[in-house]
Amino acid sequence: MKLDKNKGITAAKGWQASGVASGVKSGGKKDLALIYSEIPAETAAAFTSNQVVAAPVIVTRELLKSESKTQAVVVNSGNANACTGEQGLANARAMIRLVKDGLNLRAGALVASTGIIGEQLEMDKVGPAISLAIEKLDTGGGQDAAEAIMTTDAFLKQAAIEVELGGVIVHLGGMAKGAGMIAPRLTPHATMIVVITTDAAIAPKLLQKSLNAAISRSFNRATVDGNTSTNDTVIFLANGAAKNKKIESNTSSDFQIFQRALNELLIYFAKMIVSDGEGATKLITYKIIGAANEVEATVIGMSIANSILVKTAFFGGDPNWGRILVAAGMAGIPLLADRLELSIGGVALVKGGQGVEYDKQIIKNVLGAPEIAVTLDLKQGESEAVCYGCDLSYDYVKINAEYHT
Amino acid sequence: MKLDKNKGITAAKGWQASGVASGVKSGGKKDLALIYSEIPAETAAAFTSNQVVAAPVIVTRELLKSESKTQAVVVNSGNANACTGEQGLANARAMIRLVKDGLNLRAGALVASTGIIGEQLEMDKVGPAISLAIEKLDTGGGQDAAEAIMTTDAFLKQAAIEVELGGVIVHLGGMAKGAGMIAPRLTPHATMIVVITTDAAIAPKLLQKSLNAAISRSFNRATVDGNTSTNDTVIFLANGAAKNKKIESNTSSDFQIFQRALNELLIYFAKMIVSDGEGATKLITYKIIGAANEVEATVIGMSIANSILVKTAFFGGDPNWGRILVAAGMAGIPLLADRLELSIGGVALVKGGQGVEYDKQIIKNVLGAPEIAVTLDLKQGESEAVCYGCDLSYDYVKINAEYHT
Repeated sequence: MKLDKNKGITAAKGWQASGVASGVKSGGKKDLALIYSEIPAETAAAFTSNQVVAAPVIVTRELLKSESKTQAVVVNSGNANACTGEQGLANARAMIRLVKDGLNLRAGALVASTGIIGEQLEMDKVGPAISLAIEKLDTGGGQDAAEAIMTTDAFLKQAAIEVELGGVIVHLGGMAKGAGMIAPRLTPHATMIVVITTDAAIAPKLLQKSLNAAISRSFNRATVDGNTSTNDTVIFLANGAAKNKKIESNTSSDFQIFQRALNELLIYFAKMIVSDGEGATKLITYKIIGAANEVEATVIGMSIANSILVKTAFFGGDPNWGRILVAAGMAGIPLLADRLELSIGGVALVKGGQGVEYDKQIIKNVLGAPEIAVTLDLKQGESEAVCYGCDLSYDYVKINAEYHT
Repeated sequence: MKLDKNKGITAAKGWQASGVASGVKSGGKKDLALIYSEIPAETAAAFTSNQVVAAPVIVTRELLKSESKTQAVVVNSGNANACTGEQGLANARAMIRLVKDGLNLRAGALVASTGIIGEQLEMDKVGPAISLAIEKLDTGGGQDAAEAIMTTDAFLKQAAIEVELGGVIVHLGGMAKGAGMIAPRLTPHATMIVVITTDAAIAPKLLQKSLNAAISRSFNRATVDGNTSTNDTVIFLANGAAKNKKIESNTSSDFQIFQRALNELLIYFAKMIVSDGEGATKLITYKIIGAANEVEATVIGMSIANSILVKTAFFGGDPNWGRILVAAGMAGIPLLADRLELSIGGVALVKGGQGVEYDKQIIKNVLGAPEIAVTLDLKQGESEAVCYGCDLSYDYVKINAEYHT
């Protein structure tokens, strides 16, 4: 079980993909991705919990109520098709129709969009692009697809992992995008778009169960800016092409192995998205231990990861533990303040709720690294959670203040 | 009823104050304020809801359980006396003891602190400063006191207001500090410190009731950075020196007049604190109308005011209404997204949940002003709330990243 960062959405058997330029994005950049499986795939999904929901999310959510299997996913970037009313809904449905007709599908197709909010999609560009994407579908098209879903992303995000289930090699592969408006809080537990494919044979209920479990430990513990987008979508598709003995029980060892692989893949994407956070210079992991339960640990971790006082201190390379304790204390979870223990990069800064002496040179080195590990021990119980955040830099302000609608 | 920005904590009869330099702050800056009334005053107070609470908050909260009347408040700046353990509690109690002994008080004294977290107070400097502050008490000492409680504040915050109750002039005056770590969420409904004095005669229950009501519409609707400090404290003292007919009923017209005056004073301080937000260049008021109830309006308003994507857009002068809708939609309150109406400075940007055409020059002028009024109509009910926020600038990052502990 090893993550391969050079493979992605087409790593699993039976999956093809493509990425093309529709002209919605300027400069001939790829902005439309298509993923396809000849074998209809069991489908699990998770969407944004924002009350303002983009048209493709509404349409895909509706479709999943009636269609249980999926053969294709079309994703466009550059336009989120959000706050676009009835026309937006009609455009999202038209994209699906073009895919289904063009590929002559027996099962369903899903749609996701990311980009500017409040503008209608240019369907005269999107339509021909879908036709081109169908032509270009290829088992080696994963990287093109991953490139086509990028918006403010500084780097392409794809990865794959393989596991052995009962002597059969099963693959999971995926692509992700996202750098800003990131604090997914997905429901059932997602401007982040993630598509994961697998060739595993797995019962649909277990597919959704495994996705929920992995999301709760990855995207729902990740934040760039505390903002939950209108478009966040995670789609997980399993076509069974690996021909493993179908995973039917969540207590089976096969399910556990599958779950661990999915967790590793999604945590990798969550960390990559946060690393690519707008203006971010550091990835910071907040491990909250000694919590009464995992939910409380997560709420406290996210409160710290979202604190702009903490984020700016990390940008400045300052071990400002007071700000971390403040952010923990405002999470709405009862704390025993005089028990708190805090360390950064293994250097103890707080014991018994009070500051302790530390080596300034060592902490300087710790804070200068691109990845920083913070551990806060609540001394209240046995539960823990790891949350993922980034710093807040001048470039964050530049990117978001100089962006003009 | 007119706000006088040149008067403050000693505007009400019977109140004296002073502000002196203890040496805790460098450069001979004033850092210790004392407020005193010969007549013991009815006392109301509100404190931070953070679980990590500074020693002076713990001590003052304890005292208010047993002592109902207050004659003096001592406030030091430069050191928050937070995360300081037993020594911190002992130092807070020692400050009160020095004030009570030095002034030979019959009733109680209270303490509040603001500044660096995690360092012990230098009592060898604070002790002599309290003696000096006692010597310097004066009915004209309000401004010195207001100066002595400043930390990262760019300007001094004081104001007073007078109202006529049954033919008698009653005064309310106060001082405030705060620029960072501001999102008070006070309980019972405060690194913000605010002390308000009045010469009104009022029943103690009504004093706390009026304070709670005013706080819920002022400080609890204000945010600079979404962080709730360890030290936030609001103290409201009424010595009755005006000799008005004692306010005994919350349905009396006197109470209503008194409440309106207090609301105006506290909303003024809330706006001043947000205007003085670290690095802030603009004060933004978010009026949420058409809400099902006031709590939902407030939660949505604060979600928008705390969004760093919204804050950076305002810094950049960009009418990015999509970010405002996103922040409204992630507040956890059910919304009818296709009904939303948004205007900025009276310019309609969104109707029926979709963008509308607007005059780009007019909106540019609106966004260039130091105070910007945003109105979001939820079209769900009749309730409303106004929240107060600021933008997020390069200077915010500079102040908080270049600050070293």
